[in-house]
Amino acid sequence: MSDSQNSAAEREQGSAFMPKFDAAGLLSAVVQHAQTKQILMVAFMDREALDKTRETGVAHFHSRSRGRLWKKGESSGHVLEVEDILVDCDQDAIVLKALPKGPTCHTGAVSCFYRSLDKNGLHPAEE
Amino acid sequence: MSDSQNSAAEREQGSAFMPKFDAAGLLSAVVQHAQTKQILMVAFMDREALDKTRETGVAHFHSRSRGRLWKKGESSGHVLEVEDILVDCDQDAIVLKALPKGPTCHTGAVSCFYRSLDKNGLHPAEE
Repeated sequence: MSDSQNSAAEREQGSAFMPKFDAAGLLSAVVQHAQTKQILMVAFMDREALDKTRETGVAHFHSRSRGRLWKKGESSGHVLEVEDILVDCDQDAIVLKALPKGPTCHTGAVSCFYRSLDKNGLHPAEE
Repeated sequence: MSDSQNSAAEREQGSAFMPKFDAAGLLSAVVQHAQTKQILMVAFMDREALDKTRETGVAHFHSRSRGRLWKKGESSGHVLEVEDILVDCDQDAIVLKALPKGPTCHTGAVSCFYRSLDKNGLHPAEE
């Protein structure tokens, strides 16, 4: 196998954590409620946010609009306590299984995904 | 309110679907099993992938590595039948609630998130 094949195989099958950041230095992070399994939000993490999350046990992201580290709940107090972190096959996306201390969405909704899409547009989601 | 505030409010509270693509023309798409609620994969969609998904009812993405439309399962047959689409507050991320026709991950795993991260590295996830 070539080096790049070896590296891909190691990334997929190995036990070493080798997060793959994109050209902007980011990876995708999905937050799922550890108990209800509802998807609460999707955001991005850079190395700093990932390290802070692992170090503190509460979710940190990289805010693309503000261009800085963003501790979720830093102003509202609605932090996300991380119970588990799942990593995908090519290590460019993670799932945080978390217990939220309040609504996750800044609108006050439990989840940012409070609308469902059909042919006519958006309507309140059932969940 | 300013125009940009009006537009943000409309995007958050309205019933009009106004997907917000990033500078690369992409938004994040998370696939969740419609029944078990397990998160199966995370990928990106451009306008074409989003339109194709809505039109056909099976998940399409934009492959960043191949730079083209990618129908999930186009070679394996393991397509994702979309049952519902959820949209987040600022309309830059979506959740596809789907029924998979086979393993979702190209490694043969049910989900791409088959490993859990702790201080020592990766190990098989329980789910």
